[in-house]
Amino acid sequence: MSTACPSRLDREIDELAAISAHPAPAVTRVLFSPEDLAAREWLAGKAREAGFQLRQDPVGNLFIRWEGSEPCLPAVATGSHTDAIPNAGKYDGVVGVLGGLEAMRQLKEAGHLPRHSLELIMFTSEEPTRFGIGCLGSRLMAGTITAGEAQALRDPDGRSLDELRAAAGCGGDLGAVKVSTGAYKAFIELHIEQGPLLEERGIDIGVVEKIAAPSAFRLLLKGSGGHAGAVLMPDRRDAFLAAAEIALLVEQAALESGSKDTVGTTGLVEVKPGAINSIPCDVKMEVDFRDTDQEARDRALAKIGQGARAVCKRRGVEIDWQVINQDPPALCERSLVALAEDKAAAAGFSHDRMVSRAYHDSLFMARFCPTTMIFIPCHKGYSHRPDEFSSPHAIAKGVAVLKECLKELSR
Amino acid sequence: MSTACPSRLDREIDELAAISAHPAPAVTRVLFSPEDLAAREWLAGKAREAGFQLRQDPVGNLFIRWEGSEPCLPAVATGSHTDAIPNAGKYDGVVGVLGGLEAMRQLKEAGHLPRHSLELIMFTSEEPTRFGIGCLGSRLMAGTITAGEAQALRDPDGRSLDELRAAAGCGGDLGAVKVSTGAYKAFIELHIEQGPLLEERGIDIGVVEKIAAPSAFRLLLKGSGGHAGAVLMPDRRDAFLAAAEIALLVEQAALESGSKDTVGTTGLVEVKPGAINSIPCDVKMEVDFRDTDQEARDRALAKIGQGARAVCKRRGVEIDWQVINQDPPALCERSLVALAEDKAAAAGFSHDRMVSRAYHDSLFMARFCPTTMIFIPCHKGYSHRPDEFSSPHAIAKGVAVLKECLKELSR
Repeated sequence: MSTACPSRLDREIDELAAISAHPAPAVTRVLFSPEDLAAREWLAGKAREAGFQLRQDPVGNLFIRWEGSEPCLPAVATGSHTDAIPNAGKYDGVVGVLGGLEAMRQLKEAGHLPRHSLELIMFTSEEPTRFGIGCLGSRLMAGTITAGEAQALRDPDGRSLDELRAAAGCGGDLGAVKVSTGAYKAFIELHIEQGPLLEERGIDIGVVEKIAAPSAFRLLLKGSGGHAGAVLMPDRRDAFLAAAEIALLVEQAALESGSKDTVGTTGLVEVKPGAINSIPCDVKMEVDFRDTDQEARDRALAKIGQGARAVCKRRGVEIDWQVINQDPPALCERSLVALAEDKAAAAGFSHDRMVSRAYHDSLFMARFCPTTMIFIPCHKGYSHRPDEFSSPHAIAKGVAVLKECLKELSR
Repeated sequence: MSTACPSRLDREIDELAAISAHPAPAVTRVLFSPEDLAAREWLAGKAREAGFQLRQDPVGNLFIRWEGSEPCLPAVATGSHTDAIPNAGKYDGVVGVLGGLEAMRQLKEAGHLPRHSLELIMFTSEEPTRFGIGCLGSRLMAGTITAGEAQALRDPDGRSLDELRAAAGCGGDLGAVKVSTGAYKAFIELHIEQGPLLEERGIDIGVVEKIAAPSAFRLLLKGSGGHAGAVLMPDRRDAFLAAAEIALLVEQAALESGSKDTVGTTGLVEVKPGAINSIPCDVKMEVDFRDTDQEARDRALAKIGQGARAVCKRRGVEIDWQVINQDPPALCERSLVALAEDKAAAAGFSHDRMVSRAYHDSLFMARFCPTTMIFIPCHKGYSHRPDEFSSPHAIAKGVAVLKECLKELSR
């Protein structure tokens, strides 16, 4: 098995990275921002160049299809996302999209004639930046959120998903995004690990057998404002101090969950009015909490809820607890895990099974189609930051394994 | 002594409140924003209408002058500010500016002929919203910051004071803002209390004998980012969790200072990258800490510094501690305090001496001229919020006392 041509793919990774709202090395492409739209357009051009067909669904999931000789058979799919949180890196998601494109192109160039159609999916809004909920495209495909729930989403500026997708040229009923079980034979997502294990252990390929159970919630805290010089300490109802205590409770609950995979992060905190001499009256905080063990996670969440309410009661702060999502973990399809292991072994790559603690569209694809993921090492596990890095060599190995899986599955 | 005509002044307070970046009842007028500039223009119109002279210094302090019969004598001044933090109310600062204007107009209408010139000063940027430092105009007048330090200031968008003041039509050398000792005979600032004491005790007039020792510092915390799902808890260097602990230390230090007047507020917190699924790598926080007892305050500050450094060391977070200001308290001029008390008593108003815990331009005026402040009650002590309120009746009493003081001092 030959490894992928690194030069074409690496060049494309760099080209896509240049489409960013922040200067290099940072990459920022928020859903339906000018950069996200430009990236979609750029990707569509690459797909057309390679002779693949294009389709976009009402939420903006982009399907790049290589029609098989028996188009009515379930398709074999790969893919990931190209949206990026503010100041992210250039590999998260992108390796799965451009690596998938590269695998399909290489198969085509090598004269492969698929019986099952091959599809590369670029999912809309894997990142939750704009609407607070991740994997919007794949959730709608799986039907784990309804069209109505999606229509109710508003971004921080109060703009609706419907408004934004219309402006981005995505029309039609969101209900039509849902995919029926049986439409896909398999889905395999190539991705950087976003953790340090493969690199530390010198392993080329991680084959994912389980994807962690993520959950996210938003807290709106309402205290009482006032002049920082005038209101004495005992008379305060400072919403930020409540938020500070709650963030520390989140950390503590993760540390004490009894599972080493439990992670809890208060990633978004907005404090209003946000002036040095004004007591914070309103805080919005968003917390991400996940584990491969759903019970350990849900116990920890209950503990945080209890603690947060006690903090707010003591401080006279109102709390509005909004569940953004609380998804079960996903099990990967055993036969696909075995297939990827076989292909890695046949290529002479070291490999191991692993769990994904990060969120992926695969979590939702797994609801309606056999799914696994192929992980490649990334430097120190850095991700969601500008110095995220996977070597061309590591990426090529991942693409090679993906290509062989797609080849066999589409026969 | 007759009280001021409430209708003209109250109408003007409402007119000025309508010049705001946020809809009523909120008032937002940030330094050199379109609203701040419009408010300046509006005030200048009112001053011209009343027949007073206008002068603006290089930092945009506006001097509304009624020339006395002996113009070389030190002037008698009053004034305050019209800038407002985001989502503030309509009385903070404004009562001192429009109340001062009203007092001068009433004296003029009553045929008073001042020997000393009377001056109403509208100070630039009493609020620290734009540049992180409050009382910019009066600090420059007092020379407690130099022109060079002021020139080095940058707003959150990286724009300099020089750029912004030039765009606002304020030219000339910032060094020329400094006022020499002896230029003013007295300065009296009329202001809402921004605390609940006068209202609770049913007192009409508070005469300020001491202004609290304010200090402000900015912490830049630098941790390590990464994907919220991928980095295990023990491997994290979360800058926001350090900030959360430090904010709680600030509160604790204020509570334990041994002085009931000590207040500490973490009013500004900015968390980056600010995505729910990304570990915070950078936090900017700004803390306001003050007391009428300078020693108690500085002991508490030392304790916070020590604690914050320990937190950051334990969490592997870098800390950059920037002192924004650490000013000594101001003592008001005894003879002016006595004068204001006499005038309040003569009008039949109840009155008491008090300290100001809030920051005021008076703090810096006191550095080079005899100063005091006249406080009036405001509802529940609310300030820096849209429901800030002082009754027309309470304002009129404050204006009446101010007017009589200005009348006597300018004779």
